[in-house]
Amino acid sequence: MFPERLRAAQLAVEARLQLALANRAEVPVVAAMRYAARGGKRIRAFLVLESAALFGIGEDQAISAAAAVEALHAYSLVHDDLPSMDDDDLRRGQPTVHVKWDEATAILAGDALQTLAFELCCDPALGPAERRITLVAELARASGADGMVLGQALDIAAETSPEPLTIDEITRLQAGKTGALIRFAATSGAALAGQDPAPLAAYARALGLAFQIADDILDVEGDPEKTGKRLGKDAGAGKATFVSLLGLDGARARARDLVAEAVAALAPYGAAGRNLAEAAEFVIARES
Amino acid sequence: MFPERLRAAQLAVEARLQLALANRAEVPVVAAMRYAARGGKRIRAFLVLESAALFGIGEDQAISAAAAVEALHAYSLVHDDLPSMDDDDLRRGQPTVHVKWDEATAILAGDALQTLAFELCCDPALGPAERRITLVAELARASGADGMVLGQALDIAAETSPEPLTIDEITRLQAGKTGALIRFAATSGAALAGQDPAPLAAYARALGLAFQIADDILDVEGDPEKTGKRLGKDAGAGKATFVSLLGLDGARARARDLVAEAVAALAPYGAAGRNLAEAAEFVIARES
Repeated sequence: MFPERLRAAQLAVEARLQLALANRAEVPVVAAMRYAARGGKRIRAFLVLESAALFGIGEDQAISAAAAVEALHAYSLVHDDLPSMDDDDLRRGQPTVHVKWDEATAILAGDALQTLAFELCCDPALGPAERRITLVAELARASGADGMVLGQALDIAAETSPEPLTIDEITRLQAGKTGALIRFAATSGAALAGQDPAPLAAYARALGLAFQIADDILDVEGDPEKTGKRLGKDAGAGKATFVSLLGLDGARARARDLVAEAVAALAPYGAAGRNLAEAAEFVIARES
Repeated sequence: MFPERLRAAQLAVEARLQLALANRAEVPVVAAMRYAARGGKRIRAFLVLESAALFGIGEDQAISAAAAVEALHAYSLVHDDLPSMDDDDLRRGQPTVHVKWDEATAILAGDALQTLAFELCCDPALGPAERRITLVAELARASGADGMVLGQALDIAAETSPEPLTIDEITRLQAGKTGALIRFAATSGAALAGQDPAPLAAYARALGLAFQIADDILDVEGDPEKTGKRLGKDAGAGKATFVSLLGLDGARARARDLVAEAVAALAPYGAAGRNLAEAAEFVIARES
């Protein structure tokens, strides 16, 4: 069942990340890396482990890829929260890294978390070198100037744009900002197995978009106690979101359609795809 | 001869980096990446190409590794120059990225340049997957929380330390901040060839230290016109440097000893090591 599998993924990836950060120099930047790498929903780690399981690849073999995507995600949050970016002082209910330490430490900790993500992709446990270099290449593509960073750059450009974004523009922004890393996570099992990633890529595309729409809905009607972050930011900033463009009901309907699409994309895997299907249901039902 | 070989390396790596950054989205962050990836001495690229040449590996095969180390170095400079880090407004005689664009763009451009470095290590032209994943692992080790970022963290800690650093502490700081990436560059030829990196690692250790001492000397008596950056920063900040601890003459003597040590480490390669030996002479003779 999904909640148990998610919980198992959370525990496994937490342990792998803390192991990766053990026996490092005792400097504030390493403490900040450990702090930033803790907690979170771990949806991306879950997607890695479940997509690997579809191909008979166990947690022991896939866990470093799960830890890699979470380290990459953690770096992006640390940098995103910086004063010159989103200027957030709270993340998962805790002070952000630059608030708890300082900006220089937050920049360096984010930098080293990105490096750690690539280091984790080199773990021999993941399999033959061909598969590992594919993972590295896919992670780089998902996170760089054609992926996550492009999404963040488009997000920044949107803030000063005289015209609010259209649905197509927001979709492109999201495809980079959160979609690319979700795609990496959901297709990584196929990459580790050397199998066709196309069904998982279709699943991830729909899932990523549903995830962003759910985030926009939470920003409007979420509970700050449960989300652990400042809400109403987008409306306050006059930013176009899926909710501002489609309305709350329209956004909910679109998210439901996308979840159905994500579930349909899993058909080739039969019953084995059940956990991934449940994850898609979860992203639109979550409260944080 | 060294000057011609260095110039050839500069041209080749410039072309490879601009190719890697062609056909990207036309957003400010990509323009900032191109800007930051331009110019510089390209000593690291030279070290990659020359160490590869020792093992009969040509420029066509090794160039992506040279571009990778320069992209990694460029990212570190962009982040290092940020207001919360070294707060520099000039680099190679030009406005730094956060001055020419803004802080958010500089953070993202640095982030994506790091990603690009790992992407470049995946280039199939570099050789079999085993060799490429070794490069990725070595680059991650050199740049992360045990390498370059550790050096930068120690540098920040030194600025608020009540006691000036000792020679051993400065040596450790330098081994991370500039030494680790020079080591990666100088040993990458052995990694690409699957050969023992030990002689090149010994060469790189001495070269890296000599390079830092030469930087400290330039900070005291360099010509701002030629170095293209603000000088006298370290003395102004009351920071311990090799010059403040050894004196100008002592620092020069130490650099000369290290260059001799670097050249001696190249003995196993015979006459083929001449270009690398000349590079070591250059680092203490340079004016920028």
